[in-house]
Amino acid sequence: MNADILKERQNATFDVEKLTNILDGGPELTKRRREIESMVLNDPDFMEEDPNFLSRSERYDQAVRKSAQMILKLREYGIADPEEIYCYKSTVHLGKPEPLDLHLGMFLPTLLNQANQEQMDRFFMPSWNLEIIGTYAQTEMGHGTHLRGLETTATYDPATQEFVLNSPTVSSIKWWPGGLGKTSNHAIVLAQLYTQGNCHGLHAFIVPIRDMNTHVPLPGIVVGDIGPKFGFDEIDNGYLKMENVRIPRENMLMKYAKVEPDGTYKKPPSAKLTYGTMVFIRSMIVGESARALSKASTIAIRYSAVRHQSEIRPGEPEPQILDFQTQQYKLFPLLATAYAFIFVGQYMKDTYSRISGDINQGDFSELPELHALSAGLKAFTTWTANAAIEVCRMSCGGHGYSRSSGLPDLYVNFTPTCTYEGENTVMMLQTARYLVKSYQQAKAGQQLSGIVSYLNETDHRRVQPQPVSARPTVVDINDLASLVEIYKLRAAILVGMAAKSIQQELQHRKNQADAWNNSAIDLVKASDAHCHYVVVKLFTDKLGEIGDTAVHSVVSSLALLYALHGITVNSGDFLQAGLLSVPQVLQISVRIKELLSQLRPNAVALVDSFDIHNKKLNSVLGRYDGNVYENMFEWARRSPLNATEVSQMFSCGK
Amino acid sequence: MNADILKERQNATFDVEKLTNILDGGPELTKRRREIESMVLNDPDFMEEDPNFLSRSERYDQAVRKSAQMILKLREYGIADPEEIYCYKSTVHLGKPEPLDLHLGMFLPTLLNQANQEQMDRFFMPSWNLEIIGTYAQTEMGHGTHLRGLETTATYDPATQEFVLNSPTVSSIKWWPGGLGKTSNHAIVLAQLYTQGNCHGLHAFIVPIRDMNTHVPLPGIVVGDIGPKFGFDEIDNGYLKMENVRIPRENMLMKYAKVEPDGTYKKPPSAKLTYGTMVFIRSMIVGESARALSKASTIAIRYSAVRHQSEIRPGEPEPQILDFQTQQYKLFPLLATAYAFIFVGQYMKDTYSRISGDINQGDFSELPELHALSAGLKAFTTWTANAAIEVCRMSCGGHGYSRSSGLPDLYVNFTPTCTYEGENTVMMLQTARYLVKSYQQAKAGQQLSGIVSYLNETDHRRVQPQPVSARPTVVDINDLASLVEIYKLRAAILVGMAAKSIQQELQHRKNQADAWNNSAIDLVKASDAHCHYVVVKLFTDKLGEIGDTAVHSVVSSLALLYALHGITVNSGDFLQAGLLSVPQVLQISVRIKELLSQLRPNAVALVDSFDIHNKKLNSVLGRYDGNVYENMFEWARRSPLNATEVSQMFSCGK
Repeated sequence: MNADILKERQNATFDVEKLTNILDGGPELTKRRREIESMVLNDPDFMEEDPNFLSRSERYDQAVRKSAQMILKLREYGIADPEEIYCYKSTVHLGKPEPLDLHLGMFLPTLLNQANQEQMDRFFMPSWNLEIIGTYAQTEMGHGTHLRGLETTATYDPATQEFVLNSPTVSSIKWWPGGLGKTSNHAIVLAQLYTQGNCHGLHAFIVPIRDMNTHVPLPGIVVGDIGPKFGFDEIDNGYLKMENVRIPRENMLMKYAKVEPDGTYKKPPSAKLTYGTMVFIRSMIVGESARALSKASTIAIRYSAVRHQSEIRPGEPEPQILDFQTQQYKLFPLLATAYAFIFVGQYMKDTYSRISGDINQGDFSELPELHALSAGLKAFTTWTANAAIEVCRMSCGGHGYSRSSGLPDLYVNFTPTCTYEGENTVMMLQTARYLVKSYQQAKAGQQLSGIVSYLNETDHRRVQPQPVSARPTVVDINDLASLVEIYKLRAAILVGMAAKSIQQELQHRKNQADAWNNSAIDLVKASDAHCHYVVVKLFTDKLGEIGDTAVHSVVSSLALLYALHGITVNSGDFLQAGLLSVPQVLQISVRIKELLSQLRPNAVALVDSFDIHNKKLNSVLGRYDGNVYENMFEWARRSPLNATEVSQMFSCGK
Repeated sequence: MNADILKERQNATFDVEKLTNILDGGPELTKRRREIESMVLNDPDFMEEDPNFLSRSERYDQAVRKSAQMILKLREYGIADPEEIYCYKSTVHLGKPEPLDLHLGMFLPTLLNQANQEQMDRFFMPSWNLEIIGTYAQTEMGHGTHLRGLETTATYDPATQEFVLNSPTVSSIKWWPGGLGKTSNHAIVLAQLYTQGNCHGLHAFIVPIRDMNTHVPLPGIVVGDIGPKFGFDEIDNGYLKMENVRIPRENMLMKYAKVEPDGTYKKPPSAKLTYGTMVFIRSMIVGESARALSKASTIAIRYSAVRHQSEIRPGEPEPQILDFQTQQYKLFPLLATAYAFIFVGQYMKDTYSRISGDINQGDFSELPELHALSAGLKAFTTWTANAAIEVCRMSCGGHGYSRSSGLPDLYVNFTPTCTYEGENTVMMLQTARYLVKSYQQAKAGQQLSGIVSYLNETDHRRVQPQPVSARPTVVDINDLASLVEIYKLRAAILVGMAAKSIQQELQHRKNQADAWNNSAIDLVKASDAHCHYVVVKLFTDKLGEIGDTAVHSVVSSLALLYALHGITVNSGDFLQAGLLSVPQVLQISVRIKELLSQLRPNAVALVDSFDIHNKKLNSVLGRYDGNVYENMFEWARRSPLNATEVSQMFSCGK
């Protein structure tokens, strides 16, 4: 092991394993995770070529092969718990997306949720056995987040008792679904349902797209790969154009809405029934943000402990770059953010499973709050993690730019989370809609409960913006409870300001819609502040659950750094609202520097606690043993350009 | 042409061609640029396969072929002016890097600057004729920005009158030089010179690395490609390991420093002689930032005029996404930034050429200021443009993620500017060193001139941080001169605070070096504020040169938006220093919204003014004619995965 990184580990003040257990949710879960990981990583069937040296087609082929193996093995080993399947799967594909993602994550669950018994009998087992491989075709070339705009039509023909599916325009071509291009032979297609001359909006249809035996596209189906992307090389995101494609009436998913043989349409009992899945997926993405950022900060911090460069004191040997204050200032707040997001991810998962029982019973009372929270936090955490991965990459200097660092691949495969499952700005505005509505309810005298209770009139009346000097400052910058309080007040003020902006626009004779659009900047800002408050609060709450003193101490420093760093970045808000005074803001800058020094000896141990296996990290810079340079040289020599000593372009002489 | 984008052009309030002329530096320069571009773009020898559909090796081969053609044609057409060569070259390679970049941009210029007459005779013409292809091998695996840390040795052996070059460790292996891996047969190697038992620091040596006829690596040379990177697929960034490689004494570049046949070392007359090139390259990178951001904003704004999505007013058709306030707030400040950076780039180029005459005469008096400015602005503009490209990409929703958008390629090829030619944080600290030194000189009573004159004691005494209420506010938020003034005061205050932090650290018994490192966060912040001030100032100054009223009006709105947006993002600084009051900060938010609406009708015309040829943009989303969807479908069908209707993985049945 590299001597520097060994020394870092010896200097840590806490027990890494104890913190790992907390992050996993308990020692048994750590143990089981490691069992599953080593089951996969020791399995020769999952050996792979380094994707960095493969063409896109080869990466796709390799992923398909591994996915097929994976399905067999999951069955062989009887792994059926969703968490364990997730762990197995992400180890097989080393965190990368895979061609069966939509089959497993959307096609099968949609069958389970929306197919009636006859459809389950017909489709489920063949799908489970991979005879049917499905995808979920919603997005069109011209239409994404705004579902009502989708153009694909499914028109019922009572004469033959069939639906006729069509892509009437170029912009209506289905575009983006994973696994659609080459892998799938079926798709659940979202289309506008027309029957008896009326449009009944979007419904889901099971459409066979390729022959089950020959895999050749069926008549009327134009299907293919949408071409290379920033990342997702393993995935055949596809297009699907349908020309009078006929499917039996029984292929419309009819657990809730129905079309009778004569064409009579029956509405679903509740529009909220398909709503839970969306909330679930967005909640899960919060966890994805945490994982991506954990990986990136592991790579950057370990490498920064190994890399020596420049000088601090003239004449002395080049220091570890982790000793530079600027490097600590780049990385430690991100490390703190990774921890914050892990805890927020745990909270979202727990909350979802707590209320999903109620949802199944038809009690949707807690769903709106969770919906608003999951939309905003999805945007907040993915934007943050997205930018943070790039900060980590650039903090590794030139070597971060090499694919051997693992960071380019991590970035390009993570960044779509900012766009899919609800574009982030749209998500922020959805949360804002909930906040403004709650604010107005409170103003109208209603007593709010839950996470928005801070918007109650009694609270927010006292936090109107006012000059700094007019407000007594009682904030203790070392007390997390006190910081949670001012994050809360900042959110309340910004929600109030957004609501006021809408009010003012309405007074200028704007209609409600234009008033909303003309306040959108303020609304996004309010949502962002709300999410920030929630994250600081949940991080602080988590500290109460940590019993071990040494672990508690270091995680508390992270939480304090997270909270104070967020204040300096947004100091304008806090000053503007009079929540902090100018001297306090200056004190916070000093305190942050102290926290950086304080965390410095534990930095490597704090990323070790994430316990990410070398193979899952797939980074020469982030190797656990710190032996970076030898392995980088080794890796480079395998570059395809080095297959011949003299490039073909020169071998014929010039 | 797409009807939406046509309408946008009809609604513009100014003459696009006039603004293009200003950006080019005059109508003749616009004309000549277009001549060169069409010369290349109509030349069948430069036709290329879409690199998105090629493997990395194929991309390399294609680029080598085009570069070889390019050299022949430049000579054939007698294009010799550096600006025109640059234009020709960037059109041939459509803005992408190419394998001969270091031959043309470093190897040849270094010969010109540092070779003596005998060396020029021996090396220049063969290099000019591409018999010798060279690269510039400075960076090592373990050493980048900090040149003194380089480990490669060149030890003089008087017995044979040769230098013996060695890579003594793994970390000393030369790493990253472009064109080193497969293309070059020579390298200018930077190595620590040892003679007569003493080390004399870094010197440059011409080292043959491959046989001139067979292109096979020479004895003692281990050379190859460093493997795939985030981008730069066309480039064979390479490694070079040397084991007792002997070169004649005359291969050390000896225009300034010398080693006599007996091994006696003669110092160069001035260390500053090689310093100008670095400043020149950093100044040029400011222009690169402007170009990259111009491209990204052209793509995002044109696509936002074509794309319809969601709703503003219920029941109405989906609006152009450019009508959403959030989209305008994402894109228009970046559009303004592109303009700002173009003007700053022009200023840097002009300033460099103004003082380069003096430099050649041995007058270095203006160099330190330009050095400090180019370091800081290189970092400021590349960081900004880097983040901005990604904002542009994500503002295009899912389609921005497709390589057909051109944005992924733009990003991965631009982002290395944050790291190469001086890592950005190191650059910011270099500028800070100059600022703090100037501040201390001013404090000691010296009268500063030039761009740092605002640090003169008389000025900065009155801008110590103080409570908001204590300072009379006279700022007019609609007056750019007034805004330049507060940007200047902000910079002065932050430089003062950084200097004060160093002072305080010294009082805590820290040595100078540790005091510096413990103030590094403040120092970077001070540099950033200084650069921001310079950019706002230069943008404002430029307005004075614009005669046409309509153009002046729209560019003034951009300048105001740039300045005000920068204030809201950094409102904490302005509030903290009492440069703005809380009501003013609120007014600025309102004013920004007004400016967004005001710029909306001219947005497409403002990107049209960049006059970037469709082929150089290489983006389906950014096409001039706005016909996005048809062309995206066309493009996708050419994806290599679509070469066969049934993927190989399925063709044998499952």
